[in-house]
Amino acid sequence: MPAGGTVARAAELGTLSAVAHEFFTDENVGRFLAEAEREETDDVHRALLRETRHAYDRATCVPTSLVERFSRATSAALPLWVKARAAKDFGLFAPSLQEILELRREYAAAIDPHASPYAVVFEDYEPWIPLETARTNIAQLRDGLKPIIAKAVKRAEGAPNPFAGSWSVENQHVLGRRVLAALGYDLNHGRLDLSAHPFSTGNVYDARVTTRYHENDVLSGLLSTIHEFGHSFYTLGLPKEHFGTPLGDARDLSVHESQSRLWENHVGRSLPFLEFIAPAFDEAFPGRFAGISVPDAWRAANRVKPSFIRVEADELTYHMHIAVRFEVEEAAMSGAIETKEIASFWNEKMESYLGITPPDDSQGCLQDIHWSHGSFGYFPTYSLGSMLAAQLWESFERENGDYTDAIRRGDFTALRAWLRDRIHRHGKLYKTTELIERATGSKLAPDAFIRYADAKFATGANA
Amino acid sequence: MPAGGTVARAAELGTLSAVAHEFFTDENVGRFLAEAEREETDDVHRALLRETRHAYDRATCVPTSLVERFSRATSAALPLWVKARAAKDFGLFAPSLQEILELRREYAAAIDPHASPYAVVFEDYEPWIPLETARTNIAQLRDGLKPIIAKAVKRAEGAPNPFAGSWSVENQHVLGRRVLAALGYDLNHGRLDLSAHPFSTGNVYDARVTTRYHENDVLSGLLSTIHEFGHSFYTLGLPKEHFGTPLGDARDLSVHESQSRLWENHVGRSLPFLEFIAPAFDEAFPGRFAGISVPDAWRAANRVKPSFIRVEADELTYHMHIAVRFEVEEAAMSGAIETKEIASFWNEKMESYLGITPPDDSQGCLQDIHWSHGSFGYFPTYSLGSMLAAQLWESFERENGDYTDAIRRGDFTALRAWLRDRIHRHGKLYKTTELIERATGSKLAPDAFIRYADAKFATGANA
Repeated sequence: MPAGGTVARAAELGTLSAVAHEFFTDENVGRFLAEAEREETDDVHRALLRETRHAYDRATCVPTSLVERFSRATSAALPLWVKARAAKDFGLFAPSLQEILELRREYAAAIDPHASPYAVVFEDYEPWIPLETARTNIAQLRDGLKPIIAKAVKRAEGAPNPFAGSWSVENQHVLGRRVLAALGYDLNHGRLDLSAHPFSTGNVYDARVTTRYHENDVLSGLLSTIHEFGHSFYTLGLPKEHFGTPLGDARDLSVHESQSRLWENHVGRSLPFLEFIAPAFDEAFPGRFAGISVPDAWRAANRVKPSFIRVEADELTYHMHIAVRFEVEEAAMSGAIETKEIASFWNEKMESYLGITPPDDSQGCLQDIHWSHGSFGYFPTYSLGSMLAAQLWESFERENGDYTDAIRRGDFTALRAWLRDRIHRHGKLYKTTELIERATGSKLAPDAFIRYADAKFATGANA
Repeated sequence: MPAGGTVARAAELGTLSAVAHEFFTDENVGRFLAEAEREETDDVHRALLRETRHAYDRATCVPTSLVERFSRATSAALPLWVKARAAKDFGLFAPSLQEILELRREYAAAIDPHASPYAVVFEDYEPWIPLETARTNIAQLRDGLKPIIAKAVKRAEGAPNPFAGSWSVENQHVLGRRVLAALGYDLNHGRLDLSAHPFSTGNVYDARVTTRYHENDVLSGLLSTIHEFGHSFYTLGLPKEHFGTPLGDARDLSVHESQSRLWENHVGRSLPFLEFIAPAFDEAFPGRFAGISVPDAWRAANRVKPSFIRVEADELTYHMHIAVRFEVEEAAMSGAIETKEIASFWNEKMESYLGITPPDDSQGCLQDIHWSHGSFGYFPTYSLGSMLAAQLWESFERENGDYTDAIRRGDFTALRAWLRDRIHRHGKLYKTTELIERATGSKLAPDAFIRYADAKFATGANA
């Protein structure tokens, strides 16, 4: 969208969401829902009622005045966050954040006065994964990765980086389109555009992808494109027979993120995938890889090193950033720490998990936009997505055999079919925990990711 | 939009238009409207009430059952039209068209049983231009152009065509973007994409353009782009203070078309404009115009020759195509001719006005999609737009002096400002007839277009 169009688009979306909210919260909807719940019915209808009931209760039990106060507070917070980040001073944002936290607690109390506020807001993103499960898994992931990170950092030291230097953005775009086509993205049901931040959006008939390219980082754009392909490919596999009902939607954030991260990390960052795309790379950038072996390129693409900014972190240290956020958010929401203590609490956690202390707040607790929007409980879904991706990958290879050769040939047929069958076609039919157990035979857990990380980064033949 | 996304998009738009219709036709709207009409008020509010009343009466006095029958009939008609056109046999489409004509008469009778059906459906596109005005103007245009076309055809015979041959689509796109930028298209409030048929859409904050390129016709794509720029530039000049109300919308089809045709014909097809873009042309297509003078190129770009297909017609014979359609539509709607006679009636008119008889119905009355959609009364707005474009151009030059030098320099500042002032900023504040008289000092008439055509194609120095 052209930047100047925001005013009109915001007004249109505001009107649409107000009208949709009014329709959905009509008392007749509540009456019909209660009637339908009293009837004998089948699995599909029970699932439909379960999802509708959850959304309806959330939409109706929060007073409009609170929604408006929250909307005003977050609108006011955004420019203050921008200013505070520029000034590298959390103190400028803290009063605003304090107000947002209070409004989030009020919101949580309106929905369930007996639950912990963080558990209630987490349910906005993950209605069917208990916060307790997320907490345990993220803590285990954090502890399990610590020794692997130490080894991986050591191995990466001093390795050459063939991806350094400047890369033509136009040629990156040519390469990106070739890779999308090879993965199986159907341009009859999607398109690739450029935007400041990569994202994907759409429905089962039309799921689009945006990406962006950095002149000095050829891998970033390529991996972003693959990541967004994973999201869109999930969307394009949702059940058409449920289009327009809650069952036709994707199963929330962690499952969505598992799809993007499976394609980005388990496929895109793998050695056989780099072997597969090496000819396309050479064609897009003739001579740039002369004298460099694919394993060397692969090692460079999987370099592990602690850093301050989450969105620039490698595949392993990333989860330490999430662990920090999870613990800060839960402590701030519960009141275990005061808002003004967030910056120092953050920095202590960074030192403890990654051995580095942010030099200022812009590289610490002010780096992400999420809190200024009032989003608390969103971050954990990133790590849950990575865990689930590894768990799915392990199940897939257990059932289909080692996939290395297929990736090297660029044949993703079996993987696409398996994901369609185990995840995509079910939409929201099953609760998240049930979907995962049906797909993988086990509960959501960090074990598969830790095994994967150890083999790839610490003890594996190519590590 | 990717082709495969149509299903979802159609469902979404269907839902939105049903909801919007339900809101608008609520009896409370009628009550509030009647109350507001009884109050003392100012010009702006009177205009707002006038436009709202017109739309409200049309939306409420047509029975839902008729809307549904019409929707079913046109849905069924489209594939039959496609089939008939492929078979070059109007007989295959005639029964379907017969049904649509009957439903249009029923629609017209529901709105105004005393008016002629064609006048009522014409009002859907031009609420404030009487059909009588359109009829008189189009007949005068038809008769006035006849001798000019004869001379222009003669002059064009045997002239060389430097635009023949094959033209790289990528280089056409480079050229198109340069031309859009030179005209003053603001990419902060728009974008240029490709589509099967060029169009423009949007609002005052975000007005976008699509175009398409033909490998064997470099002018077609360029002039389409300029045409769509004219539409979008109008949209971007609408009154922001009325955004979201009827007054913030453009003044219907003829005025919109006057804007696209003014830029396409009076600017884009002019000799000084070709002089202005000659260097960009040479850069995009090095050496292609070696040895060809700009006046020769201009003559080739303005070649007049009768042909069967409206959308491929030149600037003059185009209006004969419209005269044919106007007369066929009015006769068919009134029952003066029977549906089955349409094909032969069409062919007689083509012979009479252009001296050529279509060899089959696909090059005759089956060539346009409009009737299969149930659109009758749309075609005249194309010619009214051309007339108004010439009338505006004459007024602009009368007030600002000859614009040849400015075009040659690529300086469109004065023209843009004048159009903003006279047309764009008024939205729907004035009725169409009043807007035209305020902008040009005279009533809508074909005289200016006939003078322009004569000077350019028959008797002018460059003709």
